[in-house]
Amino acid sequence: MPCHAHKITGDPAVILVSTRNPLNIGAAARAVANFGFADLRLVDPYEAAFREAVSAVGGAHVLRNARVFGSVAEAVADCSLVLGTTAGQHRVPQQDVERLDAGMAGALRHPGRVALLFGSEKFGLSNDDMSFCHGLIRIPTSPETPSMNLGQAVAVCLYELVRTGRADNPAAAATPAVSGTDAEQITRMLLEVLEKSGYLNRITAVSTEQKIRRWIRRLRIGRRDAPLLLGILRQILWKLGRR
Amino acid sequence: MPCHAHKITGDPAVILVSTRNPLNIGAAARAVANFGFADLRLVDPYEAAFREAVSAVGGAHVLRNARVFGSVAEAVADCSLVLGTTAGQHRVPQQDVERLDAGMAGALRHPGRVALLFGSEKFGLSNDDMSFCHGLIRIPTSPETPSMNLGQAVAVCLYELVRTGRADNPAAAATPAVSGTDAEQITRMLLEVLEKSGYLNRITAVSTEQKIRRWIRRLRIGRRDAPLLLGILRQILWKLGRR
Repeated sequence: MPCHAHKITGDPAVILVSTRNPLNIGAAARAVANFGFADLRLVDPYEAAFREAVSAVGGAHVLRNARVFGSVAEAVADCSLVLGTTAGQHRVPQQDVERLDAGMAGALRHPGRVALLFGSEKFGLSNDDMSFCHGLIRIPTSPETPSMNLGQAVAVCLYELVRTGRADNPAAAATPAVSGTDAEQITRMLLEVLEKSGYLNRITAVSTEQKIRRWIRRLRIGRRDAPLLLGILRQILWKLGRR
Repeated sequence: MPCHAHKITGDPAVILVSTRNPLNIGAAARAVANFGFADLRLVDPYEAAFREAVSAVGGAHVLRNARVFGSVAEAVADCSLVLGTTAGQHRVPQQDVERLDAGMAGALRHPGRVALLFGSEKFGLSNDDMSFCHGLIRIPTSPETPSMNLGQAVAVCLYELVRTGRADNPAAAATPAVSGTDAEQITRMLLEVLEKSGYLNRITAVSTEQKIRRWIRRLRIGRRDAPLLLGILRQILWKLGRR
């Protein structure tokens, strides 16, 4: 890390969701080490034996210290900006997709911990995974062959982060954003309000839940606004409950 | 390629010298395809069976058309700018080493065919290989773990070439924000919800109103989110009013 002047708050968390091939986990660990980072997290990897991945040359320490989580929610709990990666061939009508360089410039200005989310080799990120993201980023690949190998995608994203960090980014001191835990609490309370007020119905409940979760992330609620928002929701809940 | 505005004269030739692992050749082929290029060349690969590399997902056509040469001299014969890649841990007293971004900017300005030369996994480029290079480029990796996986290094170099080639960085199209009118409508409805739910009291009403108004603006709600938000508020109001 000493070689880079990146100003990101702590390491970005590189989070691999449902990765199938241990070689790709090893390759991702190597890229994390190559660019001077250390925080690798795995959600639900298919093979428990990933720590033996031989592809982690030089990144063995990253792989050894990688943390395993049971859900995306847990993996991003301490992160206040979650960026999902997409090959861009999938339609993502509900969320903005930024180009990699713009996304990483934003990540560097972000005053809290940043998570980069990578989906499985076969399916990428699911809609549910994406609903935890504040934004989506796309590597500018060719439309004919948009889908990158996982380890290569991680390498390109971290390269861009380091590259951008070297340019002098006059840190646009943004408001510190709420943590993943707080964003999820707000989401849960709002969903309860919606349920109690009859906005949610059984047929659309799951898609609405994802919609609301995405929306709460997209708003990028500031940390100082969380108490206000939670207070409002609590009051509405109390009033709705009193009927 | 249609998506990229890179101005490089023809495809850059991606040349892998004495590569040992066919998987890495496949991964390089995939990266070549990912970034809209097609010209892969191999000097003296260790395994003749490289064309079966399963790691070339999406880059099979690149792998199939890869040309094999017996020497670097033959491989670069039609190229007027040859850039060698180095992890930078090797001492290269005879040649300047440029950072990747500077090197690629130079490649884009070059009016002839450009070659990017990648050495073997174990030894990198030899002094002899380097003697064919007009310049050396270095990916800005961490001094502790400088050496990248071959496929990942190819991906990062080609990404940088494509990125640099997009001369004018069109401002990342942000979401259009709601108009002042919409923001005010949202504010009014939220205030009504707060009043009906008993959150507002007479003493703090004015300051809360300002706080809510500021907050709604600070959120920078996107235009397409306004209907969702208004729908939610309308539903809550309806429910609160029914008591």
